[in-house]
Amino acid sequence: MALIVHKYGGTSMGSPDRIKNVAKRVAKWARAGHQMVVVPSAMSGETNRLLGLAKELAPAKESADYMRELDMLAATGEQASSALLAIALQAEGMGSISYAGWQVPIRTDSAFTKARIESIEGDKVRADLEAGKVVIITGFQGVDEESNITTLGRGGSDTSAVAVAAALKASECLIYTDVDGVYTTDPRVVQEARRLKTVCFEEMLEMASLGSKVLQIRSVEFAGKYKVPLRVLSSFTPWDIDIKEEAKSGTLITFEEDTQMEQAVVSGIAFNRDEAKISIIGVPDKPGIAYQILGAVAQGNIEVDMIIQNIGKDGRTDFSFTLHRNDHARALDLLKTKVLPTLGSAEVVGDTKICKVSIVGIGMRSHVGIASKMFGTLSEEGINIQMISTSEIKTSVVIDEKYMELAVRALHKAFDLDQVQA
Amino acid sequence: MALIVHKYGGTSMGSPDRIKNVAKRVAKWARAGHQMVVVPSAMSGETNRLLGLAKELAPAKESADYMRELDMLAATGEQASSALLAIALQAEGMGSISYAGWQVPIRTDSAFTKARIESIEGDKVRADLEAGKVVIITGFQGVDEESNITTLGRGGSDTSAVAVAAALKASECLIYTDVDGVYTTDPRVVQEARRLKTVCFEEMLEMASLGSKVLQIRSVEFAGKYKVPLRVLSSFTPWDIDIKEEAKSGTLITFEEDTQMEQAVVSGIAFNRDEAKISIIGVPDKPGIAYQILGAVAQGNIEVDMIIQNIGKDGRTDFSFTLHRNDHARALDLLKTKVLPTLGSAEVVGDTKICKVSIVGIGMRSHVGIASKMFGTLSEEGINIQMISTSEIKTSVVIDEKYMELAVRALHKAFDLDQVQA
Repeated sequence: MALIVHKYGGTSMGSPDRIKNVAKRVAKWARAGHQMVVVPSAMSGETNRLLGLAKELAPAKESADYMRELDMLAATGEQASSALLAIALQAEGMGSISYAGWQVPIRTDSAFTKARIESIEGDKVRADLEAGKVVIITGFQGVDEESNITTLGRGGSDTSAVAVAAALKASECLIYTDVDGVYTTDPRVVQEARRLKTVCFEEMLEMASLGSKVLQIRSVEFAGKYKVPLRVLSSFTPWDIDIKEEAKSGTLITFEEDTQMEQAVVSGIAFNRDEAKISIIGVPDKPGIAYQILGAVAQGNIEVDMIIQNIGKDGRTDFSFTLHRNDHARALDLLKTKVLPTLGSAEVVGDTKICKVSIVGIGMRSHVGIASKMFGTLSEEGINIQMISTSEIKTSVVIDEKYMELAVRALHKAFDLDQVQA
Repeated sequence: MALIVHKYGGTSMGSPDRIKNVAKRVAKWARAGHQMVVVPSAMSGETNRLLGLAKELAPAKESADYMRELDMLAATGEQASSALLAIALQAEGMGSISYAGWQVPIRTDSAFTKARIESIEGDKVRADLEAGKVVIITGFQGVDEESNITTLGRGGSDTSAVAVAAALKASECLIYTDVDGVYTTDPRVVQEARRLKTVCFEEMLEMASLGSKVLQIRSVEFAGKYKVPLRVLSSFTPWDIDIKEEAKSGTLITFEEDTQMEQAVVSGIAFNRDEAKISIIGVPDKPGIAYQILGAVAQGNIEVDMIIQNIGKDGRTDFSFTLHRNDHARALDLLKTKVLPTLGSAEVVGDTKICKVSIVGIGMRSHVGIASKMFGTLSEEGINIQMISTSEIKTSVVIDEKYMELAVRALHKAFDLDQVQA
């Protein structure tokens, strides 16, 4: 008998019939002898409906008081879906109880709309599990020190599920979603993309941060920090699929070093077309220049991704960074009005027609020449590399966005990702 | 400067535009120098929507666990509308904060779906009021000792508002609704019905229990227990109506004995067509017979209203009671199968085509002959009285439902209720 956490996304909870299906699936797991904790998202569309109402009434200026009320409002979506799932389980003959974040409690900081979980009390939940009940815990939300309701931001239910699994020392946390696992790359771009049976935590972390939408990055961080075995699998299989088969389906995110012996060098290709590039040409090559530029950007509350500073010549250098495409115009304006005047003769150039393509693999740690092979592959396809950024287990390049699909397909083939995993 | 509680029903909160109107009205009161607490219902239709979802998933048998989840679910409606109203007030430039029942906290017993308020902590609310904020408190809900969310049952937001007003020692509790006050009787039945400027608490209590839908009876009980000045008024006046005029509109429920000096003998005519009658003919006239009959009915969880037992003759008597029409078939069945077999030759007769008409007036305490006048008036109209029940300040009769409108109109005229109040 194991303690298992299931997480279901909004699509899986989207209608009474779908909630019934989730209840039947969970009941199957409970009847197989597992202690079950379930973390549901709000019914699909509900969070948008609520925030849409708020938008119609919103004050001109966003204050902390306003953010507090948004959380108060948005948290109702998960509370309702959790109660409905508990009811559906009771109709299935399974004892069940639902808890809102504050009832567990799931304690967070007070950063409304993007709070971070600080601690989770497991006693009440454990007592219910011992009594044979399925426990439903609202995703996406918690409570701060002053008893204010907080939410974790979009996709926060993944994080809730992993945090609950960590607090309860669950055997496994199963994230049911509308895809059946983690792929070597997006199957919509590369037909030969394969589902990975396992992927190691660090790779998953890179993939999440590089644009893979399968898991919210904070849930992966949490899983890594507390070594929660995490599985991504489909909620669209029939609920009465054989439980042994289901327990091995999807993609398992692993932590054990030895399982990586047979691991391919590169596990996946990630890409992201939401980025834009800004270059500042001919800035004085002197200490403090990066701070002078990026400090202003940070003060504008703009997040920066890749940063490149070339070796300077003649006392001048070029400085480039990437950022979210939505922030591009504002950052350009900010640099032109606030920073350039202090930099002398520098000029600033923006480019929104770029994308970032990354190869990710834990095997890169112990293999040389992986980055070269990447650059060679792109070169053979005539694709010019604009920026490069590397870490221990990934190499990212910025290229013209029109080459994105071509680059992803070429790299997928070059690193044998279309071959069946050992 | 006074502390004022406003309560708004679901229709007043029914859309973003209506919520904006409520915000403007509340802001007007706050700007006039009042400390404002607002108790909103869920947006109209929302509670039904949520309970409709639950019904699609409900287990065959209703358990306490199921009731708990219904409360968890239904409570989200008021949480959402409260947050939206706080946001609308912020947009109006008024500092505002919303609290769910558990955050105040409003403590209740654990009778899910019909919980009773036990206590309310006012410290947090008082601190916010001192800081100049409008405080929004969810209606309809509280929290029990084990941190479960409870609801007070339909119409419970009225009770929440009065209880909050009592706990905070508010100067007045204003119940904004879709009618503009308490009438001598339903204006849809009697065109000459007049709005009462004041009505005393005991009369209001009788009217609420006799079928007047203006206020939930428990809210009136609460108001009486804690002497909360309560005013029922319309939320459909323009929000920018002169505040002095608004403060005197509607109907004030009073507690002071001396204001009743000029009071009419009868204040209003109440009626209720949701009732049915059951008579058991020829039951043995011996001790314990009422318990034998009504005990079985109570065990079936059926509430009984009027009860009449005639003087027996030949050792036999007739026993009649009224109950909600919805329970009629079940009660008949229960009596026939479980009770009659133990009563010998008795037979049971049901009648759903009845109604109850009542005259209510604090003046009945000190005036004789009021009941006689009622019976005389009905007799003149040729209306047969089937059952009579009296209390200090009301007399109720059960008559054939086809005479209801006729009876109400005749009584309204006979007791001069169409004359302008002194």
